Amino acid sequence: MNLDDVRLARAYLSRVAEPFAGALSGLVSEVGPVEAAALVRAGEVSPSVLSQTSARRAVELAEEDLQRIRARGGRLIIPEDDEWPRWPFVSLGVANGHRRCGGEPLALWVRGEHDLSEVADRAVAVVGSRDASGYGQHVATELAHGLALAGVAVVSGAAYGIDGAAHRGALGGGGVTVAVLACGPDIAYPAGHQGLLATIARDGLVVSEYPPGVTPARHRFLTRNRLIAALGTGTVVVEAGRRSGAKNTAATTVALGRVLMVVPGPVTSASSTGCNELLRSGDAVPVSSVAEIVESIGRFGDDLVETVGDKRSDLGAPQGDAMRVYEALGLRSGHSPEVISVESGVELGRVRALLPELELAGLASRGEEGWRRLEPSFG
Amino acid sequence: MNLDDVRLARAYLSRVAEPFAGALSGLVSEVGPVEAAALVRAGEVSPSVLSQTSARRAVELAEEDLQRIRARGGRLIIPEDDEWPRWPFVSLGVANGHRRCGGEPLALWVRGEHDLSEVADRAVAVVGSRDASGYGQHVATELAHGLALAGVAVVSGAAYGIDGAAHRGALGGGGVTVAVLACGPDIAYPAGHQGLLATIARDGLVVSEYPPGVTPARHRFLTRNRLIAALGTGTVVVEAGRRSGAKNTAATTVALGRVLMVVPGPVTSASSTGCNELLRSGDAVPVSSVAEIVESIGRFGDDLVETVGDKRSDLGAPQGDAMRVYEALGLRSGHSPEVISVESGVELGRVRALLPELELAGLASRGEEGWRRLEPSFG
Repeated sequence: MNLDDVRLARAYLSRVAEPFAGALSGLVSEVGPVEAAALVRAGEVSPSVLSQTSARRAVELAEEDLQRIRARGGRLIIPEDDEWPRWPFVSLGVANGHRRCGGEPLALWVRGEHDLSEVADRAVAVVGSRDASGYGQHVATELAHGLALAGVAVVSGAAYGIDGAAHRGALGGGGVTVAVLACGPDIAYPAGHQGLLATIARDGLVVSEYPPGVTPARHRFLTRNRLIAALGTGTVVVEAGRRSGAKNTAATTVALGRVLMVVPGPVTSASSTGCNELLRSGDAVPVSSVAEIVESIGRFGDDLVETVGDKRSDLGAPQGDAMRVYEALGLRSGHSPEVISVESGVELGRVRALLPELELAGLASRGEEGWRRLEPSFG
Repeated sequence: MNLDDVRLARAYLSRVAEPFAGALSGLVSEVGPVEAAALVRAGEVSPSVLSQTSARRAVELAEEDLQRIRARGGRLIIPEDDEWPRWPFVSLGVANGHRRCGGEPLALWVRGEHDLSEVADRAVAVVGSRDASGYGQHVATELAHGLALAGVAVVSGAAYGIDGAAHRGALGGGGVTVAVLACGPDIAYPAGHQGLLATIARDGLVVSEYPPGVTPARHRFLTRNRLIAALGTGTVVVEAGRRSGAKNTAATTVALGRVLMVVPGPVTSASSTGCNELLRSGDAVPVSSVAEIVESIGRFGDDLVETVGDKRSDLGAPQGDAMRVYEALGLRSGHSPEVISVESGVELGRVRALLPELELAGLASRGEEGWRRLEPSFG
């Protein structure tokens, strides 16, 4: 089969059916894209496929669309390509029919030079509210920057607020970032992100299920969100209000069996209400740092992080009876072992044994008038 | 058996042994407090009990201690009293020998008029760092205030920072608050909380395992923390740095099988590091409100909260094909059903069926020139 014919067929189907079109996808799996396209054109399909294709089946823009994307330095990636993110999309296939997820896309309209499959192999989605707080924007930028430095691509939706901060943070870290759009890959939406999208198309990847020229619509954001969730090994929700669209991406992440991570925020901030609700639901793990994200993903074996922690107090501070004796030592004047025994409640023989140990540890000093306490050198 | 003799015996043992003294508690369980006191006085005890009592067994202050606590308007509560918080302490007994928990206290030195058992029956511990942020103090005050209004007593440790804010919030809400001290119940520690402790002794309860006059010491805070955890049905950690003592109370809460709740905080705040770590450990549930605390405790059946949530979007917004048709409606000029069908990708017949439905729902209007979109009245 000629790959150009396959690409043309998928370009046609991508324009004809509004994603996600499950019945059409089923037909494509069954008879292949070229035959499926011919059947759709002829209207010789099942009622369910017809309902998904009848409205636009006469729209023949495949060649033109492919030219338009090429003119923007882009391409149409199809499942028959090596670059197709096969593995990340497996869960979409499995979840096909799930109300929330939809299945694998028919094709992806892409701008940018990176290999999408390679990028998706080591990627995390970072999403959140459009009306983000300063805290949220700061954290999104920092995390994305750190992920970039760790060689992890940042997938997001190019919206204002958290999405934009995530893309910018990744670009600032010299990393790859992927913007998944709810409109054609040539549409600058939101308008204020025209420059950002141009930069992402140059240094990262702009990805869309929609052909050139398709305008954004509310339902397309929901459909798009499943691709953001699917392209990341996990999703980090940085900030989300109670009704944020990021909660949709979060739910899809869970439905796809991916790791849902959430940045905790102040309970006094409406911008964090959705995040704290997700934490409370038990579906999400909290993350505070790049190290915790990488650990939560648990896929990048080479660079699993060392546990954050501080064991100094366990090493330096006296424990048990020794601690009680230490606390009973004189601060300004020295105490006799007998006084220390009564003060601490530790029997005299044990006090006599522990005092030299504390002296050796630099925690007690013996003087003319008795035993005094020395401040430990730690902490 | 004369209850006065029992109280004198326990007062003596409480002064002689530094809590928690597991071997001595075992002896008391075995032979009763009066006989145990006699054996300790005579030194006729096992080596393990001897090691816990030999240092102070000659200290005979029982009568004097009871007079001192009475002079401060207080009393010694013992397990033989109706007021003993029997049920809350069961888990301490079960956990006896657990390195972290220690067992049930021998007695409790108490100031305040409330019945400790009744108070503990409906109580939550609210704890956190001494060096709390403005955020932490605000949240601790608000939560404690709300718990007081809900008739839930607030147990804490009277320290600076979160503890103090929790006590004050509960008092401000007209509720009962319990201060559990790491020193004698007559000692104002920290000194800056002298007035607060006096207020708590008047309107709430000041509770300690230590007899009058005993000064605070580091190990006593750890020993004390188990009582805070045991007296609450659950523990709320409002703010905790990485090395905060509140993490000790948190660990004890888990060891006792109580509900550990944590207030999420900014990941950029060192004061919330410990909280976010606890959340990440999976041992704690996040709580953002009094309603969520009461729900998490899950004991006060009468007042289980309604789920917080906003279903408006589910009620008002069009779904599926209807949403797609709605999005394809003209904004400024009207569109024909045919145009709407191509725009939305929904087959023409279905578009013709959905348009009147949208009109009925107040989301579309039919004009001379076609169908236009109306903004929904929700959100």
